[in-house]
Amino acid sequence: MPPCDVQVAAAAFSRAHAAREQGEKQVMEIAIVLFDGITALDAIGPYEILSRLPGAEVKFAGKQRGVVRTDNKSLGLSVDYTLEEIAAPEILLVPGGFGTRSLMNDTRLLEWIRGVHRTTRWTTSVCTGALLLAAAELLEGLEATTHWLERETLARYGARPVARRVVQQGKIVTAAGVSAGIDMALTLAAEIAGADVAQALQLGIEYDPQPPFAAGSPEKAPAAIVAAARSRAAARAAQFPLGV
Amino acid sequence: MPPCDVQVAAAAFSRAHAAREQGEKQVMEIAIVLFDGITALDAIGPYEILSRLPGAEVKFAGKQRGVVRTDNKSLGLSVDYTLEEIAAPEILLVPGGFGTRSLMNDTRLLEWIRGVHRTTRWTTSVCTGALLLAAAELLEGLEATTHWLERETLARYGARPVARRVVQQGKIVTAAGVSAGIDMALTLAAEIAGADVAQALQLGIEYDPQPPFAAGSPEKAPAAIVAAARSRAAARAAQFPLGV
Repeated sequence: MPPCDVQVAAAAFSRAHAAREQGEKQVMEIAIVLFDGITALDAIGPYEILSRLPGAEVKFAGKQRGVVRTDNKSLGLSVDYTLEEIAAPEILLVPGGFGTRSLMNDTRLLEWIRGVHRTTRWTTSVCTGALLLAAAELLEGLEATTHWLERETLARYGARPVARRVVQQGKIVTAAGVSAGIDMALTLAAEIAGADVAQALQLGIEYDPQPPFAAGSPEKAPAAIVAAARSRAAARAAQFPLGV
Repeated sequence: MPPCDVQVAAAAFSRAHAAREQGEKQVMEIAIVLFDGITALDAIGPYEILSRLPGAEVKFAGKQRGVVRTDNKSLGLSVDYTLEEIAAPEILLVPGGFGTRSLMNDTRLLEWIRGVHRTTRWTTSVCTGALLLAAAELLEGLEATTHWLERETLARYGARPVARRVVQQGKIVTAAGVSAGIDMALTLAAEIAGADVAQALQLGIEYDPQPPFAAGSPEKAPAAIVAAARSRAAARAAQFPLGV
């Protein structure tokens, strides 16, 4: 691209952002659910992208205001809004973690998810957050993805699990385990604001992944490591009782 | 690998973890610094990996206990320990964000960094966290990396910026912008606990990245998007005054 075109494109991009900052564009409310036992990266990966969309206003919501602790308890995240304080988010994001186990029958949370889903533009999940969407009966008969260790659980709740990283079915978008939320959010950013904005956000977080191993999926990792992960996950899940 | 070997390897892996849980191995203290204006993913990406290392105990530390807010203010993270409560972490991780600007002359923080660095096994940074390591005079004459937009700043502080995603110089490991912390932490995990453990952690967070665009570095992104990012970053930085 000749330098002049570069400058024109850069200027157009900056104008779009300036317009947003001057309040010409509407706010886009994004609700991210937090709970005890969350896997932080499920929420923070997508947050780092979605929060930078033009007009985005991210609200971290949970059953009560205050601090929740992650699955290994070493990180506290602030819940700034109760669920009921968020009535009509444009985007709903439900992250995962072992903490979802105690929420699978949580009527208050599941009814809230079902309620806001009626008017969302996008309803999304990362990792085992998909199990909560399924428990809220949003995935009935739909293709969906979740952490690779929980694909069978997803099927038991009526979804059709597929081994893809990001799965879109209408306005519902599910991501595979933990780090897949980053790819999901970039996909969503392109849908919402166009490929230029999505690429700018990708550049902003310098997302040019160079993992030192090819072990990021059960199809690619060595069999011994997959087997060990299965047995350890079962032991770990036992520390997080299912909600009744 | 024949099934039997798979079982043997899986069993060995589980035993190593069981040994840790029974307290046979020492605790490995990992300090992650938090501050107002942090980019959350800089800290949370590596946290999600390092916190799962055998024996790991992650402590989020800052200038005072309580909640800090991220660069866009929409997320609160808990500081559980003051800096002085952490005297000898095995791993130090300094994340970045526009908030580093106000800390570049913060004697208390920089002296603490310099102090704990004397006995760390690894001193690490993500994104503009490298600028704080440089301001603490730890990168003098060393190769290092940071967010691509701040390579020149790093040079002004005496380091030799290189356009690589993860840069190791002795016990100092710096990562490029934001998401590069994930690759850095996996690299470190392999150094600390071996390739098997690192691969298991990669599989656990299902890190099989599939970004929808090839725009994650200034070398790969379209020139117009790089130019726009430069001009926007300059405007944004102006909102975060330099500390004096």
